[in-house]
Amino acid sequence: MNGLEMMQAMLEGRLPFPHIAQTLDFGLFEVAAGRAVFQGTPQLMHYNPLGSVHGGWYATLLDSAIGCAVHTTMALGYSYTTVELGVHIVRSASARTGPLRAMGQVIHSGRQLATAEARIVDPNGKIYAHASSTCLVFETKPV
Amino acid sequence: MNGLEMMQAMLEGRLPFPHIAQTLDFGLFEVAAGRAVFQGTPQLMHYNPLGSVHGGWYATLLDSAIGCAVHTTMALGYSYTTVELGVHIVRSASARTGPLRAMGQVIHSGRQLATAEARIVDPNGKIYAHASSTCLVFETKPV
Amino acid sequence: MNGLEMMQAMLEGRLPFPHIAQTLDFGLFEVAAGRAVFQGTPQLMHYNPLGSVHGGWYATLLDSAIGCAVHTTMALGYSYTTVELGVHIVRSASARTGPLRAMGQVIHSGRQLATAEARIVDPNGKIYAHASSTCLVFETKPV
Amino acid sequence: MNGLEMMQAMLEGRLPFPHIAQTLDFGLFEVAAGRAVFQGTPQLMHYNPLGSVHGGWYATLLDSAIGCAVHTTMALGYSYTTVELGVHIVRSASARTGPLRAMGQVIHSGRQLATAEARIVDPNGKIYAHASSTCLVFETKPV
Repeated sequence: MNGLEMMQAMLEGRLPFPHIAQTLDFGLFEVAAGRAVFQGTPQLMHYNPLGSVHGGWYATLLDSAIGCAVHTTMALGYSYTTVELGVHIVRSASARTGPLRAMGQVIHSGRQLATAEARIVDPNGKIYAHASSTCLVFETKPV
Repeated sequence: MNGLEMMQAMLEGRLPFPHIAQTLDFGLFEVAAGRAVFQGTPQLMHYNPLGSVHGGWYATLLDSAIGCAVHTTMALGYSYTTVELGVHIVRSASARTGPLRAMGQVIHSGRQLATAEARIVDPNGKIYAHASSTCLVFETKPV
Repeated sequence: MNGLEMMQAMLEGRLPFPHIAQTLDFGLFEVAAGRAVFQGTPQLMHYNPLGSVHGGWYATLLDSAIGCAVHTTMALGYSYTTVELGVHIVRSASARTGPLRAMGQVIHSGRQLATAEARIVDPNGKIYAHASSTCLVFETKPV
Repeated sequence: MNGLEMMQAMLEGRLPFPHIAQTLDFGLFEVAAGRAVFQGTPQLMHYNPLGSVHGGWYATLLDSAIGCAVHTTMALGYSYTTVELGVHIVRSASARTGPLRAMGQVIHSGRQLATAEARIVDPNGKIYAHASSTCLVFETKPV
């Protein structure tokens, strides 16, 4: 399977979800070539000491959306690893916020380097956080 | 309590740990003026679909170390919020890696703006990830 | 004048261009609410020791596009300062590349915080670099 | 010559300085394995429309210090390219500030990836800006 086929298999439940998604209770919602959407609902278990959602929750959803978007562009025999993630948090989410979506989109997909961006929005399109990322692309060793 | 006193109360168990630390199983290890150290052990529950620790785990520990380091510099009546976090992942961690520490250090602490950095290292000092962050400082409203 | 009026005055030559634009030979091309476009042509005077355009050239154009886009959202009596800029360079430019445009767009504009992004593209829309930025918004002291 | 030898030749004037350094009037001050220092003095020609030094000036010096620090770790037959640069500006510099130094230091130097950081400080150690960066390492084609 190439990257897009793997992501589609995960969306349809033919491949298991990553453990982190179970641990933090979020899931893959949509996937297409160069694009991936995750959804999660801020909960008490995501809180920081200041009484709001921890920055790590935004980073995890944004990194998932970016990583999966990049993954869909990988041809058979290629993989990637995220080496840099830059996150902006512009609005504070809480357990009263309701479901939010992280929408990831590839910007550049080259032989050695891919970059992508993602935004976390509520159902009205209000932005809570956004990010961009640098991924290293490499050939996987043939078995 | 000022920020440093709050962080010390948390370290000594007089204030509860943030929920995210329980959810992802990591904890505050050390705190001093302008500095905070967290420790966590990569586990299967932190995994991404690629079979290694999710970027969000690094981001969460680094954000915690940075946030608490900045928190220790807050005078009574002041608080902060993290508005930007930039993470570099330079080595892949797995469930075989063992305990890692995220060491946060304030770089600049001003009236409106604070910046800080953090590194995730193993007991031999090998670096797995590093980050820097922008925090907004503001006066809390008197009760 | 509010921010947008200042930027329009600069575009029309009623306010002088910033010195850095003369030094590096680039200029404001278009401005609208929440949006600014700069244009520059990579030249030998922008080269790094590796024989291509220095990363600082991309950063300068992207920071200009982002800063002016944010500036257009400033009401009378408000100003901003860029506190963080994250740049991705995805394609190498040289003195043979021809004119490139940096297109900046505001993402979030709040009372204390603004974020924006920009892309450097050639006339065919090919991306050379992209960036996002954190700006601090503050009231200017009345004279 | 390997990377360190090239940087030392440039420091001693046996290799020409990059054009961007002449254009913006800054220079290499010190170089060692994994480390490089540049010096520049903020001038009117570096100004933005807000009447202070343009963010691109900080970015250019920081990128130079980081790039040259990474360059010193390149073995014969290897080169690098900067793909990401994240800059924090914590203090505003002006034409009255005097000379500032950008001190770059490698954090991680691997086969495919290098990361480094840099700080701009005045002679008293006061920090004006800091940055971190992601570089792609690759083999140069043999001649």
